[in-house]
Amino acid sequence: MIVGGDGYCGWATALHLSRLGYEVAIVDNMIRRHWDATHLLDSLIPIAPIERRIAAWQRATGKTIALYVVDVREYAPLAAAIEGFRPDTIVHFGQQRSAPFSMIDREHTVLTQVGNLTGTLNILYAMRDLAPHAHLVKLGTMGEYGTPNIDIEEGYIEIEHNGRKDVLPFPKQPGSFYHLSKVADSDNIAFACRIWNLRATDLNQGVVYGLSDETAGNPDLANRFDYDGLFGTVLNRFCVEAVVGHPLTVYGAGGQTRSFIDLRDTVACMELAIANPPAPGRLQVFNQFTEIFSVLELAERVQRVARGRGLACRIEHRENPRIEREAHYYHAKNTSLIGLGLQPHLLDDHTIDMMLDIALTYRNRISSSLIPPQVGWDARAFGASAKDEADVAHATP
Amino acid sequence: MIVGGDGYCGWATALHLSRLGYEVAIVDNMIRRHWDATHLLDSLIPIAPIERRIAAWQRATGKTIALYVVDVREYAPLAAAIEGFRPDTIVHFGQQRSAPFSMIDREHTVLTQVGNLTGTLNILYAMRDLAPHAHLVKLGTMGEYGTPNIDIEEGYIEIEHNGRKDVLPFPKQPGSFYHLSKVADSDNIAFACRIWNLRATDLNQGVVYGLSDETAGNPDLANRFDYDGLFGTVLNRFCVEAVVGHPLTVYGAGGQTRSFIDLRDTVACMELAIANPPAPGRLQVFNQFTEIFSVLELAERVQRVARGRGLACRIEHRENPRIEREAHYYHAKNTSLIGLGLQPHLLDDHTIDMMLDIALTYRNRISSSLIPPQVGWDARAFGASAKDEADVAHATP
Repeated sequence: MIVGGDGYCGWATALHLSRLGYEVAIVDNMIRRHWDATHLLDSLIPIAPIERRIAAWQRATGKTIALYVVDVREYAPLAAAIEGFRPDTIVHFGQQRSAPFSMIDREHTVLTQVGNLTGTLNILYAMRDLAPHAHLVKLGTMGEYGTPNIDIEEGYIEIEHNGRKDVLPFPKQPGSFYHLSKVADSDNIAFACRIWNLRATDLNQGVVYGLSDETAGNPDLANRFDYDGLFGTVLNRFCVEAVVGHPLTVYGAGGQTRSFIDLRDTVACMELAIANPPAPGRLQVFNQFTEIFSVLELAERVQRVARGRGLACRIEHRENPRIEREAHYYHAKNTSLIGLGLQPHLLDDHTIDMMLDIALTYRNRISSSLIPPQVGWDARAFGASAKDEADVAHATP
Repeated sequence: MIVGGDGYCGWATALHLSRLGYEVAIVDNMIRRHWDATHLLDSLIPIAPIERRIAAWQRATGKTIALYVVDVREYAPLAAAIEGFRPDTIVHFGQQRSAPFSMIDREHTVLTQVGNLTGTLNILYAMRDLAPHAHLVKLGTMGEYGTPNIDIEEGYIEIEHNGRKDVLPFPKQPGSFYHLSKVADSDNIAFACRIWNLRATDLNQGVVYGLSDETAGNPDLANRFDYDGLFGTVLNRFCVEAVVGHPLTVYGAGGQTRSFIDLRDTVACMELAIANPPAPGRLQVFNQFTEIFSVLELAERVQRVARGRGLACRIEHRENPRIEREAHYYHAKNTSLIGLGLQPHLLDDHTIDMMLDIALTYRNRISSSLIPPQVGWDARAFGASAKDEADVAHATP
C-alpha cells in the first residue's frame, strides 16, 4: 500500500513494485495536483489523471493497481482502505514535502505540520489496530539531520559522555518547518514501534532527481518533473535553466552541501527496504542517498554538460531565500542500503544529458517566472519574479 | 503574559509575578476545567472561576490581572491579545500536559499533538510579527529526555565523534505522545529563534508537587491539586492514598527515577528565567527540578511521614500502565537555575506533612475511584476501578 502513490516518488515506486510482482494499492488524496493549481504551477512533464495512469499500466503490463482516494488525515477512510487491502507493507510518501511551501506563512506551516503528523499518527494507530504485523516504510529526509560538524550516522549514534555510553537517536537540526515535521514523525514512529511492537523503516532520503524506467515511453505513465521555486529540486531547476538560457542560479555562496539520489535508485531502495524489515518493536533507519555535492558543484557539472551541447550557460549567485550555512562540514553515512545490494546510478554526464533532453523536449512548457524562489525564510518579501524574468535570454540554441 | 494562567503552574506563576510587581495578563481557554468535567474528575481543592480568582486577588492586594479568554490554537484572538497587552515576556503553559490523557486513544493523541504544536507555532508567528523583542518562556518537561544511560545535560551536549566535535541538541527519547509534543515544540522554537532572531527559554520541568504561597489562605485564590489517574502526579496521589487508607500504589517495580520540584520553586524559577533572557536568536534550555527520586523512594518517604501521624499505610505494587524502564540509570544536570540563585525547597518531612494536611482538609472530596490509572500505553483495557475501590479501607484515623 503506497500512501502518496500519485506523487513523484510514489508513482515511480508503485510502478516499480507492480512490475516486480507486488500487489500494489495506491492511497492518495490528490492534494498535490490541487496545490499545483492553486499556486499556478505545473509539472514540466504533463501527467495523466490517476485513473488514466492506472488504466495505462494495466494495458501495458496486464497488472492491476488498486486505488483508494483517501486523505490519511481522516482516520475512518484510511482504516477502511487498510481493512480492504490488508497490506503487508505500508509505504508512506503521503505528506506535504516542500520546505518553501511550509515557510510561506503561518497557515502553510500549520497545514504542513498538522497534516504530516496527523497522517502518520493515523497510520500508526491503524497499524496497531488493523495491521500489527505490517511493515511501515516511511519516507524521511536527510534534511532532518541538518549540517552538524560531525559525521552523520544512520538514525542512531553511540555517545560516550562522562565515562558512560549509550546508543541514542542522532541529534537533529532541521532547516524548515517541513523538515521539522519529519523529525516529529520519526520520533512518533520510534515511540509507537517501542510501545506497540510495530516495525518500521525510516528512509532519510536525499534530494531526488531524474526519472525512473517504468514511467518512460508512454505519456499516460509519465511522472512529474518539478522545477518551480516551490516544489522543484535543484538539479531539475538547473537543467531547465540551462535549456531556456536562464543563468544557473546558485542561492548564496553555493557551499551548501547535500546528499542526492537518482529516482531509479529511490525505487530500488524501496524494494530493498520492503524486503528487509526490522524485528517487531524496532524502527530501523537507513540514509537513502548515493552521492554528496555542493550546490555550486552541481551547477558546474550541469554547466559543463550543457556547454558541451552548445547551450550558452553561465552561473549566477543570487540572494539566498533560506537561512542556512553556506559553507560547512558535511559527511553522511549511507552504508546500509549499499550493504543490502543497492547499485547506485551516479550522476554522470549521461544522466545530466538525459535530464537536459527532458527539459528540451518540454521546452515550450517551461515558464521562467516559476523558476525564482517565492518564499524567504525570514519574512522578507521574496518573489521579484518579474525582474528575474527579464534576465532570461529567450534566444537559446 | 501567561498563557495557561488558569492552570496549576500558570495560576501560581501569575500571582507570584503579580505580587513581585509585574504587570500580568492571563491568556487561557479554560479547557482544563472542561476536561475535568468531561472526564468526571475534580481538583481535590475546590477552585473558583477565573473571574472570581482575579477579583479576589485585586481585593487582597490591590493588583489587577488582565484576562484574555483565548484559545491559542486560534491565531486572530491570540494576535489581538498580544497587540492589546504588548507583553515583554510570554510564559507559555497553555498546553495539554498529561501523558495518560495523550494515550487514551487516537483522538486524544491527535488532539494533544495538534493542539500543542499549533498553539506554540501561533505564538512564534505572533512574536515574529507583533512582539519580536519579547522573551518566550516555554514550559518543557524533563520527560523529553527519557532515561538515557548517560548524564542528561541542559538541552545541548558536546559530542565528539570520529575525531570531530559539535555542540548539538541533546538526543530525546520521550515516553508518551504528550512528551513527544513537547520535543517537537522545542525543535520548532529552536528553529524559529534561529531564523527570526527571537529569544526563548525552554524550561524542562520535573514532576511538580505541592502549593505555592500566594494561593494559600483565601478559598477564591486556591490552586488546583490533582490526584486522579489522568492529571494527578505521583506525590499528590500518594498523599491522598495515605489519607483515605488506600495502599500507596507503586506501578511496576518502582525503580522509575524522575526529577521533582516543589511548586514554590517553580514560581521562583519562572521569575529567574524571565529576568535572564538569552541573546536574540538563541533558545536557552534550563532543567527545572531540584531533586531526583525513584517512585518507590517517594512512596517510602510518604509512608514514613504518614505512619508518624498514625495513618496506617502500606505500599503495594500494581501493574504498570506505562511502558517504561523500571530500573535504569538516571542523572540529570540542574545547575543553571541554581546558578541564577534558586534556593530549593527540598522534599523534607515538613513538606510531606503539609501535603498530608491538604489531603486531610479535603478528605471528604476524595473519590477513591479516581485514583487508579485508566489508560494503558499498549491498548490493554485499564481502569478496573470498581475492583480497586474495594481495596480502600474507609476507616482511617
